[in-house]
Amino acid sequence: MDLSKPQLFRCEIEKGIARISHDRPERKNPFTFDSYAELRDWFRALVYSDDIHAVVILPNGGNFSSGGDVHEIIGPLTRMSMKELLTFTRMTGDLVKAMIGCGKPVIAAVDGVCAGAGAIMAMASDLRLATPEAKTAFLFNRVGLAGCDMGACAILPRIIGQGRAADLLYTGRAMSAAEGEAWGFFNRVVEAGALEAEAIKLAERIAAGPTFANSMTKTMLAQEWSMSLEQAIEAEAQAQAICMQGNDFRRAYEAFVAKEKPVFEGD
Amino acid sequence: MDLSKPQLFRCEIEKGIARISHDRPERKNPFTFDSYAELRDWFRALVYSDDIHAVVILPNGGNFSSGGDVHEIIGPLTRMSMKELLTFTRMTGDLVKAMIGCGKPVIAAVDGVCAGAGAIMAMASDLRLATPEAKTAFLFNRVGLAGCDMGACAILPRIIGQGRAADLLYTGRAMSAAEGEAWGFFNRVVEAGALEAEAIKLAERIAAGPTFANSMTKTMLAQEWSMSLEQAIEAEAQAQAICMQGNDFRRAYEAFVAKEKPVFEGD
Amino acid sequence: MDLSKPQLFRCEIEKGIARISHDRPERKNPFTFDSYAELRDWFRALVYSDDIHAVVILPNGGNFSSGGDVHEIIGPLTRMSMKELLTFTRMTGDLVKAMIGCGKPVIAAVDGVCAGAGAIMAMASDLRLATPEAKTAFLFNRVGLAGCDMGACAILPRIIGQGRAADLLYTGRAMSAAEGEAWGFFNRVVEAGALEAEAIKLAERIAAGPTFANSMTKTMLAQEWSMSLEQAIEAEAQAQAICMQGNDFRRAYEAFVAKEKPVFEGD
Repeated sequence: MDLSKPQLFRCEIEKGIARISHDRPERKNPFTFDSYAELRDWFRALVYSDDIHAVVILPNGGNFSSGGDVHEIIGPLTRMSMKELLTFTRMTGDLVKAMIGCGKPVIAAVDGVCAGAGAIMAMASDLRLATPEAKTAFLFNRVGLAGCDMGACAILPRIIGQGRAADLLYTGRAMSAAEGEAWGFFNRVVEAGALEAEAIKLAERIAAGPTFANSMTKTMLAQEWSMSLEQAIEAEAQAQAICMQGNDFRRAYEAFVAKEKPVFEGD
Repeated sequence: MDLSKPQLFRCEIEKGIARISHDRPERKNPFTFDSYAELRDWFRALVYSDDIHAVVILPNGGNFSSGGDVHEIIGPLTRMSMKELLTFTRMTGDLVKAMIGCGKPVIAAVDGVCAGAGAIMAMASDLRLATPEAKTAFLFNRVGLAGCDMGACAILPRIIGQGRAADLLYTGRAMSAAEGEAWGFFNRVVEAGALEAEAIKLAERIAAGPTFANSMTKTMLAQEWSMSLEQAIEAEAQAQAICMQGNDFRRAYEAFVAKEKPVFEGD
Repeated sequence: MDLSKPQLFRCEIEKGIARISHDRPERKNPFTFDSYAELRDWFRALVYSDDIHAVVILPNGGNFSSGGDVHEIIGPLTRMSMKELLTFTRMTGDLVKAMIGCGKPVIAAVDGVCAGAGAIMAMASDLRLATPEAKTAFLFNRVGLAGCDMGACAILPRIIGQGRAADLLYTGRAMSAAEGEAWGFFNRVVEAGALEAEAIKLAERIAAGPTFANSMTKTMLAQEWSMSLEQAIEAEAQAQAICMQGNDFRRAYEAFVAKEKPVFEGD
C-alpha cells in the first residue's frame, strides 16, 4: 500500500508526519464501508513505515467526522444477516486495533462534529486537541445501539473515568470541549484557527524524539492494559532494557556530556 | 419476588422507573442484615423484569444512607466466627454484584449522609447525582476495617483515579459534593429541592432509549473490566452485532429517514 | 537490615513514621546504582517492621529527586550488555514492587525537581502532596528511552487517566503542581514551608488508624489491579472478613458504644 495515496481519505506526508482527514466535508465527513476498510489497511501498513513518525487526524470543513453514514452504512446494516453484521463490527474494531498497533503516536485534532465512529477514532488516538466548538458524541445509544462500539466501554473509562463514560454512553449526549478538557479527554483546547498548527507542532515535537522508543511506549501502553502490576513492571524492565541498547539513548547521553541538544535518529 | 413490594425498603414503580430508598430516615437510613439481603434479592430479581428500565436510589429525610447499623450490624459482627463473617461479607459483596448484574442502569441521587455501605451503593450505581450537602465517606478505616469493602479498592479507583481513591480509603474522610463532581464521582450536583426531579428526568431519558441496548452497555462495562484491549474490542464486535439485529436499531433508522424522533421499544 | 540506618539516604523514625529523603541536595538528589538497591532493600525489609506504620518521602534542599544520575548511571548503562541492562531495569522495577508490597502507606512530599526515577517514586507512593514549585517529569523520552519505565505505562494512567499519561510519557514534559492537583496526581498542593508538616500530619493520621487494616487496604489496591469485578468482590469479602476478626474492629465498636474515640493498636 502506498501510504501517501489513499483513495477515500486525504493524506499528506511531510517531514515524517502524516496528516490525514476525511474527505467529504459537505456531509460532515461520514465513514462508508470502504473508508473504514481503507483506514484499517492504512494504519496496518503504517507499522512498517520508517518514514512516518507521527499521525495527525485533522478535521475538514470545520468538522472532524459524523461517523457511519446513515444511508450508506446504517440502512444496509438494518438488513444484514448476523454473519454480515459481525463482519462489519469486526472490521470497525479492527480499525481501532490497527490504530493502537500502528507503532506511531496518533494525535486527533477535533473540531465541530465528532460523532459515532468519529468519536471512536478520537478516543483511539494517543493525544487529543480540540477547538471550543468540538462536540464529541458517543451517540450509539441514540441510534438504538449499545455503547459498546469499537472498544468504547473499555477505553473511554480509562481516559475520563467510569462514571463520566457511563454518562456519555447511556445518554449518547455530546461532550463539550470544556468537559473534554476538564475530564482528560482533550489534552488541550485551542482556537479553531490554531488547531492544525498546534497539532502539527505537537506531532513535530514527538517525531523529533526517539521514535523507536516512542513506538515502544505505544506498544506498552496497550500491552499493559490488563496485566497485573507485577507483570507490568517486569514487562517494562524488558522493554526499557531493549531501548537502553538503542543508539538514541547513547546519543542523548553524549549530547548531555557535550552540553548539546540530542538529535535522535530513531534506532 | 414482587419487585414493587419489598418489605424493608421503599419502592415505587412508575413509567418503567423504580424509585427505591431506605426507610429509616430517623436513623439516617442504616442497613441491617435483612435489608442487605432483601436489596440483593431485589436487584437479582430485577434482571428478569421487562417493565423496569432504570432504577433511581433516592435519599430519605435528607440522607442517603449511613451504612451498616452500629448496633444491629457492627456489634454482632464483632462476635462472629470467621465462617459467619465470610457469609456476611459475601452477602454484601453479592449486593454489589447484583447491582452490576441487574441489567438496568442505576442512578444514585445522593443527599446528606452517604457512608459505608451507603457510599458503596452510590459507587456501584452507574450514574450519580448529588446535592451540595452530600457527604460521601468510605469510612471503613474509621471503624477499624480495611478500605477493601464490597469492591471499593477495585471500583473507586476506576471512577476517581487511584490517588484520590487511596486518600478516601486510607483516611475514611468524607468527600464533599464539590470534590465528587470535580473528580468524576458525581455526574452533576444540583440543589436539594431539584435532586429527585433531576434524577427521575435522567432515568426517564435513559428508559426512553433502547433498553435492550442499554442493558448490553451495562453488561459490557462490567464484562470488559479486566479484558485486554484486543479481547474487549472483539467482545464489543459480538455484543454490538447482536444489538444491530435488534428492532430498535431499525426503528432509529426508519425514524431518521422519516425525519421523526425514534420511539424505542426495547427489543 | 537496620531500617533506621540506611547508608545512602536519610532516614528518621519517630512515633511510627519513617521520614526518608535522598541525601545529595547539591546535585538535586540523584539516584545511584547503590541507592536504588538500598531503597529496594529498605522497602523490602519494611514489610516485617511492626514499629513503622507510614512512610513519608521528603525533598531535600528544595528538590525531591532528579532521578538516575547522568554520570553515575546513564553513562555506564550506555556501555552495558543486555544481560546487565536487564539486571538494572529489574532492580529499578523491584524498587517499585517493594514500595507497593511494603505494607505501609507511603506519602510523597514533592518539591522542586521530581524527575525520572524520582517521579516514579512519587507515582508509586500511595498519596502525594506537592508545593506550587513541584515539577514532575517522566522524562525518559528526553533521554532517548521509552515511557515504560518502572511501571509508568501501567500506573500513571490509573492515577491521571490514559490521555494525560500519554501526554507526559510521549513528550517527557514537566507536569506542574496545578496540573498534578487538577488531574489527581497530587492529593493536595501546599506552600513549601508547610509541606513537611502537612505530610507528617497526614502520616500521623493514617498511622493512628487501624494499621493492620491499612496494610490490607494497600495489599488489595495492588492485588485487585487486574482482577475481574467478580474476582475483586470475592477477594474483598475474604480480606475484610479477616479484618473483622481483628481487635481494632472490636475496639472501634466498643469506643462507639462508650461514646469515645477509638484507640487502634494495629492487630
